[in-house]
This record gives sequence, structure tokens and C-alpha cells, in this order.
Amino acid sequence: MTGDLYLGYRDGDADTPFGKFFKPEMAALPDHVVEALQHGPQGGMALLAFGDAATVADEGYHQTENGYGVLEDGSFQVSVRTDMPEVTPAMWTWWFGWHGCDTRRYKLWHPRAHLSAAWKDGSNDAGRRGAQRYIGRWSMIKEYIGSTMLTAAIQFIAPPSMGLPEDSDDGVAVCARLGSGDAPVDVGWFVHHIRSTPVGSEMRSRFWMGGPHIEVRNAPGMASKAVRPIASRVLGDPVATARNLLVHCAQEMNHLAAFMPQLYESFGDE
Amino acid sequence: MTGDLYLGYRDGDADTPFGKFFKPEMAALPDHVVEALQHGPQGGMALLAFGDAATVADEGYHQTENGYGVLEDGSFQVSVRTDMPEVTPAMWTWWFGWHGCDTRRYKLWHPRAHLSAAWKDGSNDAGRRGAQRYIGRWSMIKEYIGSTMLTAAIQFIAPPSMGLPEDSDDGVAVCARLGSGDAPVDVGWFVHHIRSTPVGSEMRSRFWMGGPHIEVRNAPGMASKAVRPIASRVLGDPVATARNLLVHCAQEMNHLAAFMPQLYESFGDE
Repeated sequence: MTGDLYLGYRDGDADTPFGKFFKPEMAALPDHVVEALQHGPQGGMALLAFGDAATVADEGYHQTENGYGVLEDGSFQVSVRTDMPEVTPAMWTWWFGWHGCDTRRYKLWHPRAHLSAAWKDGSNDAGRRGAQRYIGRWSMIKEYIGSTMLTAAIQFIAPPSMGLPEDSDDGVAVCARLGSGDAPVDVGWFVHHIRSTPVGSEMRSRFWMGGPHIEVRNAPGMASKAVRPIASRVLGDPVATARNLLVHCAQEMNHLAAFMPQLYESFGDE
Repeated sequence: MTGDLYLGYRDGDADTPFGKFFKPEMAALPDHVVEALQHGPQGGMALLAFGDAATVADEGYHQTENGYGVLEDGSFQVSVRTDMPEVTPAMWTWWFGWHGCDTRRYKLWHPRAHLSAAWKDGSNDAGRRGAQRYIGRWSMIKEYIGSTMLTAAIQFIAPPSMGLPEDSDDGVAVCARLGSGDAPVDVGWFVHHIRSTPVGSEMRSRFWMGGPHIEVRNAPGMASKAVRPIASRVLGDPVATARNLLVHCAQEMNHLAAFMPQLYESFGDE
């Protein structure tokens, strides 16, 4: 599944036990996402500061649950909620570990934008279980955000390193540093916080990109002029990219959530 | 009707047999167009490559029937569908020939954006019939796409020259090379493919603009640095222009389709 990049399934791609879950048609965006897109960029103070990232695990909701905009520090921030009936937080823990070793699994998630995925360590790692299957690992992906093809390194980290609590049955946080897959430059962070609701669960996604989050990898504080051109190639215009990222995240999370219970039932013990 | 440029009708403009069809209010965009605008720019591989243009005449639908985005080659692509109850493909063949000699006809189509139209050859050519009334001719138009006023030369070509079949009762393709009306520079291509449906017909429009489609007219391969500034003035920011073009095309096709059957009944033999 490395080599040629293309969208969706071809030839024998569906000839796997999970192939029947590849659905080329994506669900419509939820109304609350459409409303956020109509509102356009929000004032920085209405958006979640990176320093407050851990509050996504608190009870209640943020001032902006769905929206995007540019913060005072020049970074851009994206927040979006996904309502997921019949989905549990544990299903997402499983998904983030399970999908990463096979492009055909990754493509289930966003059939119109996902191109390839592989763990940097090359291992399929079927032995590991739970969040230990992705925490500390790098998922090397290619995908479109809007019309821009990105080669990214998603470096999963433990929730406490961003101030969030350890995962539990009722709350799971998937946290990562985001960077270029081609160059040793990081450009952002995300948290997907999934918590139980009376009918299933809800995911509250938060991204911070650009501005002070651009750093030479493993050399904090050394974000020099030299890396800005690389970072800006990855990030593009902040308002436009933030909007495209909101659409992308809402699409993939809603799409997968619609068949996650059945997928998990079939493959959750893999 | 040459001379002053203005939107819509003034003074005696409506004093023609067809003047009663000038409707200043445009219909709302169809839901599937609104959805495409919400989604924003799509990944290049989800869009129709220029080399696959002829597949618009195939049965079925494309991966992206409604959407826009930037392709790998730097061009931008726009696709949009117009559902047209009670309209036949032949009505569009008639329209593309009939409207081009009179700005007042051209304005019926898009009362908020169309400024002027005339055949470059200066002939009204009432003697010709069918697609031979526009194929091989140049329609010199002024119109807004978004806030940008364009002076364009629409050079209609025969469908087989883009690999499409000859027109039939059930399928008509209106194909053109698009260029500047001021300078000998071409910038794009379009196909409007209209096919019968059980309730009338549907138009599936496809545009490719910019990138390798910028050429000095009649000098293929000579797209030099010298013409890029002219072309980029015409085209603007690719993502923004693609979006504006999608809106414009959806508006004009839906607007005209709403009264096309009556218009054709009255003037289809002219």
C-alpha cells in the first residue's frame, strides 16, 4: 500500500475483512458545523488558548465549541464537536492504534482526502493494546486539507504531558504534536477529547497551528527564520487553512463515527 | 447595446419580444451547491483531471459532482450540476446560439453579473441553426465573476475535439476554450454536458483554468513568463476565483433553466 498515491479504494483494496466498511459517500456536515463555517473566523479571545488546552477535559463546554480563528500570537485555532451515538470513548482508543499500520484502514476514515498512513517505526505492532499502541509513536500520513496535500508526522503523546488526566472509561484524550513528514519541523498540536454522554459519546477536537508552535523538532526555542518557509508551505493562509481543517475534521469524525460501533464489534479485539 | 456597461435592464431594454423574461431576482442556490461551498476546496485527486474531461459524457457521476479546488499542476477546477425539470438538451443548443448576438438576451441569463455579449464576427447569423450557430465562433463577453469584471473570449469548439461524442437528442456538450478578450492569451476550458433525465435534463459543468491552460493564443507551448501577469490578472487567487466561478455558474444555469421551457417555446424557432 505504499507507492502510488490515490484517493479511495482501487483494484483489490477492498479485499480485506474490513473492506466492506469503505464508504465513498460522506455524510453531510452537522448543522452546528455549518453554522460555525457561516460565522467565519472568531476573535482570538473567544477561542481556546493553548495554555488552557487541559480544560477540554473539564465538565461543561467552552465558549467556542465549534469555530476557528487566529489568536493574538499569530497561531490559528480550530475547535469542533462530533456527536457520536452508540460510540464509546474506548472505541477511539482502539481506532487510533488500529488504523495506523494500513493505508486501507486509514482510508475508511476520510475517503475523499486520505492518501496513505504508516507507523514510522514500521511495526504493525499487533501485540500492543489500548492507548499504548499509539502513544509515543509517529504516524506518517499523507492527506489533503482542502486542496493542499500534506505530508505529516503525527507524534502521539500521553495526555498528562498536555495537562490532561489519564484516560478512563468515561473520558479519553488523544493528544499529538503535529509536524512536517519531510523536514524536522513541527507546526502544531491537537487534542481530541472523547467523553461519554447519555446516548454514546462526544468528541471535542482542538487544534493549535502556526505561530509559536512552529519549532525545529527537538530544539525548542530555536524556531528560526530558516524554518518559517517550510512551515508556511505546510500551513498556508491561516484563516483559509483553519476553515479547511475544521471541515476536514468534522467530515472524518462524523464519517467514521457512523459505522464505528459495527467496525469495533468486528475488529475491536485485533 | 454597446457602449455603456451596466447591470440589468434600463430605459427601453425590455422593449423586445423576449423582454418579459428579464427577471432581476435570482433563485436561491440549490442545496447541493450550498453544501459544496461549505466544504470548500477539495483535494486535487478528488477533482476531474483535464485529461479525463470526456468522461463527463459517460453514464453515472463523478466523485466530485459539485466542488472546486486546485490541481497538482497549479490549475483550478470547478464542477457543478444543475437539475432542470422540463428542459431538454436541445434547448441549450438553441440558447448558446441564440443569446450571443444581443446583450439584452445575454442579460436574461445572469441579471446580476452579465454586462455585454457580441459575436466577434459581428454577424447575428439568424440563418444558422443548432450547434453550428456557436461552434467555431467567438463570443466576446463582459461579466463579473465575484467582484472581478472579466473581458473574455469564449471560443466554442466541437465536442469531439475534446474527446466527447457528437451531440444527440439525449446528450449535448457545449465546449469552449476560454481566453482574454483584450490580449491573445487563453486561460482555460469548459464543458457543459447536458443529458436527459426522467423529468427533463441535468447539466454537469466542468471548468479548468490557469496553470498549464495558460497559453499564448494559437501558439501552444509558448506560455512564457510574459503572459503570466496577464493571465493572473484575469484569474486572481485560484481558490477564491474557483469558488466565485462555482457560484456564478450555479446561479446563471439555475436562473435560466427556470424559464427556459417558456423562452424556448416562444423563440426556439428564431
